[in-house]
Amino acid sequence: MKKKIALIGYGVIGKRVADAIARQDDMELAGVCDVISDWRIQTAVKKGYSVYAATEDAQDSMQKAGISLAGNMADLLGVAHLVVDCTPKKIAAQNVEIYKERGIKFILQGGEKHETTGHSFSAENNYASALNRDSTRVVSCNTTSILRTLTALKKAGLLQSARGTLLRRATDPWESHLGGIMNTLVPEKDIPSHQGPDAQSVDSELDIVTMAVKVPQTLSHLHYWNVRLTRKADKKEVIEAFQTSTRITLINYSDGLVSNNTIKEKYLDMGRPWGDMYEVALWQDMLKVEGDELYYAYVVDNQAIVIPETIDAIRALTGMEESAEKSIKKTNKSLGINNGGQL
Amino acid sequence: MKKKIALIGYGVIGKRVADAIARQDDMELAGVCDVISDWRIQTAVKKGYSVYAATEDAQDSMQKAGISLAGNMADLLGVAHLVVDCTPKKIAAQNVEIYKERGIKFILQGGEKHETTGHSFSAENNYASALNRDSTRVVSCNTTSILRTLTALKKAGLLQSARGTLLRRATDPWESHLGGIMNTLVPEKDIPSHQGPDAQSVDSELDIVTMAVKVPQTLSHLHYWNVRLTRKADKKEVIEAFQTSTRITLINYSDGLVSNNTIKEKYLDMGRPWGDMYEVALWQDMLKVEGDELYYAYVVDNQAIVIPETIDAIRALTGMEESAEKSIKKTNKSLGINNGGQL
Amino acid sequence: MKKKIALIGYGVIGKRVADAIARQDDMELAGVCDVISDWRIQTAVKKGYSVYAATEDAQDSMQKAGISLAGNMADLLGVAHLVVDCTPKKIAAQNVEIYKERGIKFILQGGEKHETTGHSFSAENNYASALNRDSTRVVSCNTTSILRTLTALKKAGLLQSARGTLLRRATDPWESHLGGIMNTLVPEKDIPSHQGPDAQSVDSELDIVTMAVKVPQTLSHLHYWNVRLTRKADKKEVIEAFQTSTRITLINYSDGLVSNNTIKEKYLDMGRPWGDMYEVALWQDMLKVEGDELYYAYVVDNQAIVIPETIDAIRALTGMEESAEKSIKKTNKSLGINNGGQL
Amino acid sequence: MKKKIALIGYGVIGKRVADAIARQDDMELAGVCDVISDWRIQTAVKKGYSVYAATEDAQDSMQKAGISLAGNMADLLGVAHLVVDCTPKKIAAQNVEIYKERGIKFILQGGEKHETTGHSFSAENNYASALNRDSTRVVSCNTTSILRTLTALKKAGLLQSARGTLLRRATDPWESHLGGIMNTLVPEKDIPSHQGPDAQSVDSELDIVTMAVKVPQTLSHLHYWNVRLTRKADKKEVIEAFQTSTRITLINYSDGLVSNNTIKEKYLDMGRPWGDMYEVALWQDMLKVEGDELYYAYVVDNQAIVIPETIDAIRALTGMEESAEKSIKKTNKSLGINNGGQL
Repeated sequence: MKKKIALIGYGVIGKRVADAIARQDDMELAGVCDVISDWRIQTAVKKGYSVYAATEDAQDSMQKAGISLAGNMADLLGVAHLVVDCTPKKIAAQNVEIYKERGIKFILQGGEKHETTGHSFSAENNYASALNRDSTRVVSCNTTSILRTLTALKKAGLLQSARGTLLRRATDPWESHLGGIMNTLVPEKDIPSHQGPDAQSVDSELDIVTMAVKVPQTLSHLHYWNVRLTRKADKKEVIEAFQTSTRITLINYSDGLVSNNTIKEKYLDMGRPWGDMYEVALWQDMLKVEGDELYYAYVVDNQAIVIPETIDAIRALTGMEESAEKSIKKTNKSLGINNGGQL
Repeated sequence: MKKKIALIGYGVIGKRVADAIARQDDMELAGVCDVISDWRIQTAVKKGYSVYAATEDAQDSMQKAGISLAGNMADLLGVAHLVVDCTPKKIAAQNVEIYKERGIKFILQGGEKHETTGHSFSAENNYASALNRDSTRVVSCNTTSILRTLTALKKAGLLQSARGTLLRRATDPWESHLGGIMNTLVPEKDIPSHQGPDAQSVDSELDIVTMAVKVPQTLSHLHYWNVRLTRKADKKEVIEAFQTSTRITLINYSDGLVSNNTIKEKYLDMGRPWGDMYEVALWQDMLKVEGDELYYAYVVDNQAIVIPETIDAIRALTGMEESAEKSIKKTNKSLGINNGGQL
Repeated sequence: MKKKIALIGYGVIGKRVADAIARQDDMELAGVCDVISDWRIQTAVKKGYSVYAATEDAQDSMQKAGISLAGNMADLLGVAHLVVDCTPKKIAAQNVEIYKERGIKFILQGGEKHETTGHSFSAENNYASALNRDSTRVVSCNTTSILRTLTALKKAGLLQSARGTLLRRATDPWESHLGGIMNTLVPEKDIPSHQGPDAQSVDSELDIVTMAVKVPQTLSHLHYWNVRLTRKADKKEVIEAFQTSTRITLINYSDGLVSNNTIKEKYLDMGRPWGDMYEVALWQDMLKVEGDELYYAYVVDNQAIVIPETIDAIRALTGMEESAEKSIKKTNKSLGINNGGQL
Repeated sequence: MKKKIALIGYGVIGKRVADAIARQDDMELAGVCDVISDWRIQTAVKKGYSVYAATEDAQDSMQKAGISLAGNMADLLGVAHLVVDCTPKKIAAQNVEIYKERGIKFILQGGEKHETTGHSFSAENNYASALNRDSTRVVSCNTTSILRTLTALKKAGLLQSARGTLLRRATDPWESHLGGIMNTLVPEKDIPSHQGPDAQSVDSELDIVTMAVKVPQTLSHLHYWNVRLTRKADKKEVIEAFQTSTRITLINYSDGLVSNNTIKEKYLDMGRPWGDMYEVALWQDMLKVEGDELYYAYVVDNQAIVIPETIDAIRALTGMEESAEKSIKKTNKSLGINNGGQL
């Protein structure tokens, strides 16, 4: 029998996770649960997903709005084997008590703290350590991209230390009427920023320091890195190291992919839902090695990058697939990752 | 035998027209023709379209870039019954000489002048007048939206005169790294702006004046209208008039669709390619009638709105469908228009 | 003895009002009062203004931050003849109770309701009606611009009815890191928007309807108007009507002033503090008259336009100047209005 | 007799240099020369500067626009001892031939190549080497900021190597209607970017690598640095090193100066013309030292930072002041630099 997965929080990440689950052949979407009753949840209805109300208040407002409900959150948890919680920052931490009480396995997203689950997940780095666990946290978009790239360098024996400057998109497109920054830049208060330690929650061996700044665009993040290598190396070795990851796509400035918006359009052209880019798009021709120092830049689709990781985390926690490699391959195929992206 | 359609100019409009043609069962995409050799044309290759080079220079650079070519522009025209020209402003005017010389029917886009074809097209207004013509011009995105809405009011006998203020998106997303405006507004130099007379190129009876301004966003246009009605009317009558168009979608602010970005996200949610909105999205609850004056606002997806019109224009010029109603219905169905948008 | 004026709320408007009061020779700035202790209030200290703490909490935090305080709000009211309240929306309404209790005259800004004072002020329209009143409300930036322009047309006997579309800047530059809209447009929920009725709170005879939309820039508002005249007129008459206002500046697109940013730079070039434009900048060459219909557009510096109005309101309420014309002239001279702006 | 200085190119930099020259007591502005005839040059007229036409065409158009001309470019060079050329990129390189032919000393801006003059200038680093030279190039805004900060660290014996990520404003405010980027980020094509080598044109000993990216705002640049120190150090030492420069201002995030827009507003509040910040604004509380690694961020006002450098370069080339320290002090005083900025 296929494992039934509950999705709590049908937002930017949640709606993508729901679609991704529905696309797998070894698991099943039990339903989605939220408090919203406007246009945002109506798509779930149209897609035929079972919709559950997260609270009693929501039950009223959703019914008033004509949403046909399959039940409440308890009902959904009752029919599911595992729950993926994609609620906004801090709310999941509250839901965790419910999950624990019911003894249902759960996956949180990167907005929550490592301590809440005691395990942080990044498929290519530590899939095995998540096998059959009760819970894990899929690290955030920025941290996921850092782990993919640095893990590739580390596996190739090239990684000494990494110093990154992270340009973070200010808000997501669907919320850009509610808040965001205008004609300015907003550095994060603290140097180092939290992404370095966050990456260490998955891989404590990393020597990593990050600085971060919010920039006035909504498309995706952009990272610049200066990496000290363990030795002098040439560009070819570094490129080959990155190619060992199936979730890094090497792009070229010379192909006209010169900016976040051109990359976004390419993925829309490819027919990806929402133009999603699950991969880290790293510029191959821009990348530079000078002696034992490596410089590169890449783009992270903050709305999409954790979707495949979440699917893998489901497989790890439920134990339905013991091999990281096989899970990643399965997920990649289902989402069209690095396969030209044609679904 | 299905009519073979050539597509010249694989840009923002061209790539959408190509896909739309490929989706029809009564016509066939003969191929696409352009001069670009970067990521933009690579999607055409992946989609399996026959790609032709528009110039000799392009032939070289495209081949160097590894694009497998089916031939040059003359070759494409040689196998096609009709050509849709979506090249950038002013270039189509040059191509027209070639089309005329070869005696091939052609459709231009709204950037070109009315005089170039002597006929301007808007499906719900003047389909019949385009039947079996040699050429026509599908009017621009702004003008198409004006004609859809005012034609609906006119058919209901309600339209006296219309005064509109048009907020135009500054540039398209895929080109927003090349140019655009930042933290400012740029009024068009002349009042009235050209959209009023442009609408009159389709329907000379319209009493219409427009003012236009470029705004710093890339998503879509936003129009505000003040219409003098032929008589006092109530809101219900006006709404019913708009509902006679199958290409106007009534939306509600109270559903959370409060801005251009939320509307865009809804269409991405719906699975539309590129999140395309072929419809005019007009706010029903915001609309106000006071005596014989009507006020309303709507959003126009400038990248998508002319796509269905272009498909209808193909049917009209080739004479493959004599009824406007039937062509519109066919097109709408193929693109998921006002059908919930689920393709 | 010069009248002593207290300034409560040292924000975007308040800091400008303080400077403007300090520039007059017939009144005196008693001091400024606020709750902030960061860089924003430090300029007041450097300018040598007496600084007062608005609350007890603020007193602590301001002293901790090293701000030398002259006292608290009661102290400031104790030494002032009139108070100008520029606190954020809704807070002034609470302060009003204090002002009334103390029997001190007060002026509110446009974020407050007309009912709070029972009088709304626009210098060129109704100065006389404010003479020796206990309180008034200087109407908002948008409404001030509407009243200046429509009053000019009305005085010339040309105004029948006015229909406007208002493009509102999303947030002020100094707060643009805290919130604002990004790559979208946000229409106001209701048509008509509130600015029409607000203008009628000063001049109930106006036949006016407005629609408003928030746009993603921080510089200034832009208004588009369609005015029905009482009769056919020519452009010269209309221009002459606008020239009767000393607070409308006619600009020309042909001079390169083609957008909000170029206008802003011109006022910075002129040496105006903050590049402030107290005038309505109305495009003369863009303005069009067709029969009995008039079309025009202008730019409103939302941070600056109410400053001269507030100075005039002080003169009216204190009765220190009975003639509107003389007060306006005095204010204009002190601020460099329509005098080339060279202070 | 005071040295007479000619200013060619009355743009973003030129108009500021003109005002700065006019503010010195040991030199004189001979006049300004340009080709523009619109609002941009009208301020020069109002300020009483002698205006010269750069070309014959310009002479016609400027006279037609009513600009009273003092002569042409040759006339201006005829009355000047030194020329500061602030024309757009690449144009100065052409003017250089004229300057050489006439044997007039000249200063170019950072858009030109080092080779054009054979000397690049940064006041605190190499004033002495420019003494009595025929020409020099004031390095660009980014490079000037780099030299100020790294020179301070170098003088303190702390600088080993520096790796920087530079976020560049996309365009200047006055031109933001003509072009710029929208809702995207545009990395520079090459890593390393040119600013590292450019800094080495002033100080060849620097071990420096930069990466640069254009961001969608118009206010100022933002730099992030990771510096390897010559030894372990503490924060106090580093701060003291930066304090040896009179053109670095240490700011604090805790004072509410958390972003480029708040910093801009502070300088507008201070009454600086155009809100100009001649200083590098470096966050003191954000700065971090970990072992022998230093991390910090600062903001660069690209329109203003080279103005004091240009004044110093005038003194160096004319030999009117032999001491760098004295020239810098004089310039700083005249512009209000690090003196609270109150002019």
